[in-house]
Amino acid sequence: MIETIIKPEVRGLTPYTLQDHTYRYKLNQNENPFGFPNGLKEAFWRRVRERDWARYPDFHLRQVTERLAEHAGVSPDMVLVGNGSNELIQVTLMVTVSRGDTVVIPTPTFTLYALLATVLGATPQSVTLRAGNFALPAEDIIAAAQAKQARVVILCTPNNPTGNIHAEADVRQIIEACDGLVIVDEAYHEFCDQDFRALLDDYENVVLLRTFSKAWGLAGARLGYLLGRPDLVQEIAKAKLPYGLNIFSETAALVALDHQEVMREQVAEIGRQRDLLFGALAGLDGVHPYPSQANFILTRFDRPSGEVFAACLEQGLLVRDVSHYPGLAGHLRLSVGTAEENEILLAVLEKSTK
Amino acid sequence: MIETIIKPEVRGLTPYTLQDHTYRYKLNQNENPFGFPNGLKEAFWRRVRERDWARYPDFHLRQVTERLAEHAGVSPDMVLVGNGSNELIQVTLMVTVSRGDTVVIPTPTFTLYALLATVLGATPQSVTLRAGNFALPAEDIIAAAQAKQARVVILCTPNNPTGNIHAEADVRQIIEACDGLVIVDEAYHEFCDQDFRALLDDYENVVLLRTFSKAWGLAGARLGYLLGRPDLVQEIAKAKLPYGLNIFSETAALVALDHQEVMREQVAEIGRQRDLLFGALAGLDGVHPYPSQANFILTRFDRPSGEVFAACLEQGLLVRDVSHYPGLAGHLRLSVGTAEENEILLAVLEKSTK
Repeated sequence: MIETIIKPEVRGLTPYTLQDHTYRYKLNQNENPFGFPNGLKEAFWRRVRERDWARYPDFHLRQVTERLAEHAGVSPDMVLVGNGSNELIQVTLMVTVSRGDTVVIPTPTFTLYALLATVLGATPQSVTLRAGNFALPAEDIIAAAQAKQARVVILCTPNNPTGNIHAEADVRQIIEACDGLVIVDEAYHEFCDQDFRALLDDYENVVLLRTFSKAWGLAGARLGYLLGRPDLVQEIAKAKLPYGLNIFSETAALVALDHQEVMREQVAEIGRQRDLLFGALAGLDGVHPYPSQANFILTRFDRPSGEVFAACLEQGLLVRDVSHYPGLAGHLRLSVGTAEENEILLAVLEKSTK
Repeated sequence: MIETIIKPEVRGLTPYTLQDHTYRYKLNQNENPFGFPNGLKEAFWRRVRERDWARYPDFHLRQVTERLAEHAGVSPDMVLVGNGSNELIQVTLMVTVSRGDTVVIPTPTFTLYALLATVLGATPQSVTLRAGNFALPAEDIIAAAQAKQARVVILCTPNNPTGNIHAEADVRQIIEACDGLVIVDEAYHEFCDQDFRALLDDYENVVLLRTFSKAWGLAGARLGYLLGRPDLVQEIAKAKLPYGLNIFSETAALVALDHQEVMREQVAEIGRQRDLLFGALAGLDGVHPYPSQANFILTRFDRPSGEVFAACLEQGLLVRDVSHYPGLAGHLRLSVGTAEENEILLAVLEKSTK
């Protein structure tokens, strides 16, 4: 019966999964290790208790949309709030691709892009990032996009899981050469000195994606936002489910935006910890970290990465095994933790990689 | 540029909108008028403050899935939790329909079904419910589904906005005759004496949708769930965004499930109020309510419904104008409110419909 009900491209798909592990230190999902502060939790509660939970959220999410617009330096009609930026990737693809259309994705990158494109019947077309530094091969991407009349190109900068930022000149070259839409996922942009806001002034065929799951310490709230030209935002919004964002997450985001200094201090500390961790990793024999402008460090090991992963887990440290990503055999992705977590990680790696 | 980026079927679409009105009494969205009790809000806060908000939710949403399975009388692998049942309609259509496929929808009904089908490139095929009582014309639906080899039929019972339940025999006849999937949206099932749980034992091609937005008093939390055979649930889950449900809504649902007596008492009171309101409406000249097994009453007016709507709004009462739905010219949908709200509504209608 399943065969007659479910589309073949879905039946053939392996679900996006996460293996279960028992751990004490969680360094696998690039979360903010400092957490959402108790004082801000209390501020959330004082606000949310006064709301009527039995009522639907504001249809237009005006309050949070306006605050995000102010924060991003755009007008409110250039902001679309979503249930995590995952939802915004999904709806953007929904309004742009049909069965058989091509989506160009430089890889290795966040695997959800290709999965969502496939579910929607599109064909993800990988283009391999440059060996050594994972830079954008702009001309290869443009050639692939033009050959297949790609509807969408998805760029992630800083790129997950490699940690590098993509050069603005390359990103601009791709946007200029492509007829379709270029999605720039800036999930980690708070950790780097890059901000592609200006692309929105210069081009009509680009949207930026951002999230509260990383720098803002609210992965549990599932809140992302998209920035784009008003006419584009209006079209993408058509595929968004009405009332997609709950009142709790909206309130948490408002509280976070009211206390941006908290995020900035945490991000500065994560940056310091990242640089310390990078230096220490680089000093270990058989351990080869890549420079990162995000809150994680892609690392290649001389020893089989499965063994390093297992050695970490044995000490309660869960890191991300990315060795099955194209071109990343032997690599793990290490989220930057607190100073204590990073020291424990380094101690384990020092022993397990010799 | 929009023309080359956005699919034509999306560009041609009118967004799902809600007009803004200033109101004091909200009787337009079939929400629970009693709200989520303060004691339960406090229980929510005691739980949620202990969670780490910076961490992603449990990938498998085990706790709430198990509790919902227990509540619905199925195994946990038959439950899929979503960000409102809207998301579950969307993902179910995503894995079943492709561009050009037909989705059969008895109308008038919830307008989002046709909108989501259209965004996904499918063709909604309306079949008109029986005149007078809005019963399912099972044979017409089957004929339409077979003629177009429909991938999906969507039934809503109790039906929104008509309020009637569909006869189980008709629903079974449709499921038996259709090769595709039958989605039964039971958003309002707690208000009626119908429960289609048993269909899951008898058929492979059916899923049920439920929500916390109506009886449970948590429309602000955006939480719905789907019940279906395990193999079907597994396929539908592939299109669901990972981490689609935030930790706050999950916690609120767990608290609600811990205090089901609260929901039951509220539902019983809403049922009493509905029956009182129906009797009073039926006693007014020029006012023709339809019997309802939900928490709203579809009502036809001899006077132009736009004038009745405006008269209500003038007194601060926001009701739902459904007069543009096919076959519902002259009708409004009135959510059942508190005793006080219903009395105010009746007083306004008594004056404005003469």
